[in-house]
Amino acid sequence: MNVVTLLTDFGLDDNFAGVVKGVILCRNQKAQIVDISHNVPPYDIMQGAFLLRGSFSYFPPGTVHVAVVDPGVGSQRAILAVKTKRYYFLGADNGVLAPALDAEKPLSMVRVENKKFFLHPISRTFHGRDIFAPVAAFLSKGGNMAQLGPRVKNFRRLRLPRARRSGKRILGEIVSIDRFGNCITNITPADIAGCARSLRAKVKNTTIKGLSGSYASVKEGQALMAVNSFGYLEIAVNGASARERFSLNKKNSIEVILR
Amino acid sequence: MNVVTLLTDFGLDDNFAGVVKGVILCRNQKAQIVDISHNVPPYDIMQGAFLLRGSFSYFPPGTVHVAVVDPGVGSQRAILAVKTKRYYFLGADNGVLAPALDAEKPLSMVRVENKKFFLHPISRTFHGRDIFAPVAAFLSKGGNMAQLGPRVKNFRRLRLPRARRSGKRILGEIVSIDRFGNCITNITPADIAGCARSLRAKVKNTTIKGLSGSYASVKEGQALMAVNSFGYLEIAVNGASARERFSLNKKNSIEVILR
Amino acid sequence: MNVVTLLTDFGLDDNFAGVVKGVILCRNQKAQIVDISHNVPPYDIMQGAFLLRGSFSYFPPGTVHVAVVDPGVGSQRAILAVKTKRYYFLGADNGVLAPALDAEKPLSMVRVENKKFFLHPISRTFHGRDIFAPVAAFLSKGGNMAQLGPRVKNFRRLRLPRARRSGKRILGEIVSIDRFGNCITNITPADIAGCARSLRAKVKNTTIKGLSGSYASVKEGQALMAVNSFGYLEIAVNGASARERFSLNKKNSIEVILR
Repeated sequence: MNVVTLLTDFGLDDNFAGVVKGVILCRNQKAQIVDISHNVPPYDIMQGAFLLRGSFSYFPPGTVHVAVVDPGVGSQRAILAVKTKRYYFLGADNGVLAPALDAEKPLSMVRVENKKFFLHPISRTFHGRDIFAPVAAFLSKGGNMAQLGPRVKNFRRLRLPRARRSGKRILGEIVSIDRFGNCITNITPADIAGCARSLRAKVKNTTIKGLSGSYASVKEGQALMAVNSFGYLEIAVNGASARERFSLNKKNSIEVILR
Repeated sequence: MNVVTLLTDFGLDDNFAGVVKGVILCRNQKAQIVDISHNVPPYDIMQGAFLLRGSFSYFPPGTVHVAVVDPGVGSQRAILAVKTKRYYFLGADNGVLAPALDAEKPLSMVRVENKKFFLHPISRTFHGRDIFAPVAAFLSKGGNMAQLGPRVKNFRRLRLPRARRSGKRILGEIVSIDRFGNCITNITPADIAGCARSLRAKVKNTTIKGLSGSYASVKEGQALMAVNSFGYLEIAVNGASARERFSLNKKNSIEVILR
Repeated sequence: MNVVTLLTDFGLDDNFAGVVKGVILCRNQKAQIVDISHNVPPYDIMQGAFLLRGSFSYFPPGTVHVAVVDPGVGSQRAILAVKTKRYYFLGADNGVLAPALDAEKPLSMVRVENKKFFLHPISRTFHGRDIFAPVAAFLSKGGNMAQLGPRVKNFRRLRLPRARRSGKRILGEIVSIDRFGNCITNITPADIAGCARSLRAKVKNTTIKGLSGSYASVKEGQALMAVNSFGYLEIAVNGASARERFSLNKKNSIEVILR
């Protein structure tokens, strides 16, 4: 297997993602390249980290996960290659890999510095093409990580904001909003353990009661709370957009009351 | 061949499509996954059905066509796996497969129920990942459909709206609008047989005369009618958008007068 | 290797790109299809040409580059298949291939006319599916170009607008704007040779001084000029959009003053 995933803020209008794929294929013609998303909002490390955390474990062992959300491209920021039990990760040391690495412990980690593996001339504005792509190809062929650069022990953390509990109240926030307008919070099943049935959430001026199993378990057009498929509490509307219904945005606070 | 196509309303901003591909590759490393589109408008079964109908026959025999436009996810709605002479189809029994199956007759059909083939734990909000993906991988490896669940005989119909003819008038409607602003109607060459040259269409306050062979056969900026490449009459403007020019929307009626 | 790249104005909402891939796979099941972009603005030959020029050389030798930005589809315009030292190119003879062919000299060139290789019936509105796809598959399998049609010697030129120098002033223009709002000009390092440090650019009412190596080499939110990774001078803002900051559009003029 030679799966390489790409998660970037390159968008799909330009040729950036295509060129990265070309370079990977030049160096590993058997690479099977899968897009996680190229529509991370520009420079939004948090959203890139969130998507990588929710995606990496669904790929075959040996997959090389490449995250290029890299506002510091061309600066002295490090690029890290990380080996875990099942995967390789490649990304700038800006936190984009951190939530994934909190979930899948690094076994070894190097700072990618060996120019021998890069595409030359090395630009200072498109390391996706000149560094990430050829190094991903190298890793996908089973290359020895130690050749890429010196071993490092730490990486920059980026913890997703945690929900806070105070007595019967949990104060969380919206950390992501998906295409359907489902508003994903940072509240997990552990936070509400044992209280699912008696839950109430305050979303702006509306109160949503109880936890639903699926969107379709309430009437069309009705709001609901559910634990989503990635393990977070989300606010949704059956057949419509909770974002639009309640004018919600990322970072809006959500209060959940247990009884 | 192990081609699996994906047609969904997942969009490209989130990680949904990428995760589905990861799961497929975990179970069939040789799968060749092709996106038909992930930009079906959320919950728009009709548009999904329309795109699948226009696409499926262009793929190699043996292709597994997966359609995930599934507002009923997590409810009791069935998921169908269908074998036809050339293809497999996998989709919720909500009509999204229906126009394709009207064109390519089912040889056998099962209700997908055997949890052994699913990804566990099975969420109730992301069956694309937990059911469709692993079952698609199973089918793409030549798996025996009978193992997936009990045989069924019927599927939910979803006929695209038909044009009506009354004497020399055909009343149709716009069923889809493409990226170029070409407005595709539900009127087919059979409806206008023998009358192509003497045709007139009323589109809002404009009359378009005759049938053109290609966009470029009229002057740039001029409106035209043509039978498009999928066999439907469409309203277009050479080098511009008919949608914008005539402020057209889906479901707008189009009257064609034969002489 | 059987890499086929696609660069089109099909967008990603419809099934056009997916259907093209299906047809390619029907004829060459080993084809590895890579999207350069499908979001070229409708009919924008210049932008398609620009993206192809900046992309083609990053792919493996033998790659078939297919460009479908083709407002003349169905007219008498020629479709060209071109062999260069390293690649094949396939596109309408409308200039979309021209900048790439200025950089990678054609060794032989034919007008694609042999219907034997087309998909039948041949529509007059979707040659991407009916001509480009099957011919690309043929070329990707090492097919003999001479079978496709008669040899031709010339192709339609489309030179990207050149920057003009007058004494110490260079008058260029914005030729492309990327997803990040970086505004790419037609000014090259050769135009400013030896003057990088003492450069000033006038962008609307702002003056930008000097050439930066990377976005991150100025403070966040500050404007800069850099030679981008494709060899053009660009106007950027670290961590934000130069397009938005300065209300820039394609074809806006940019004046650079050497000292």
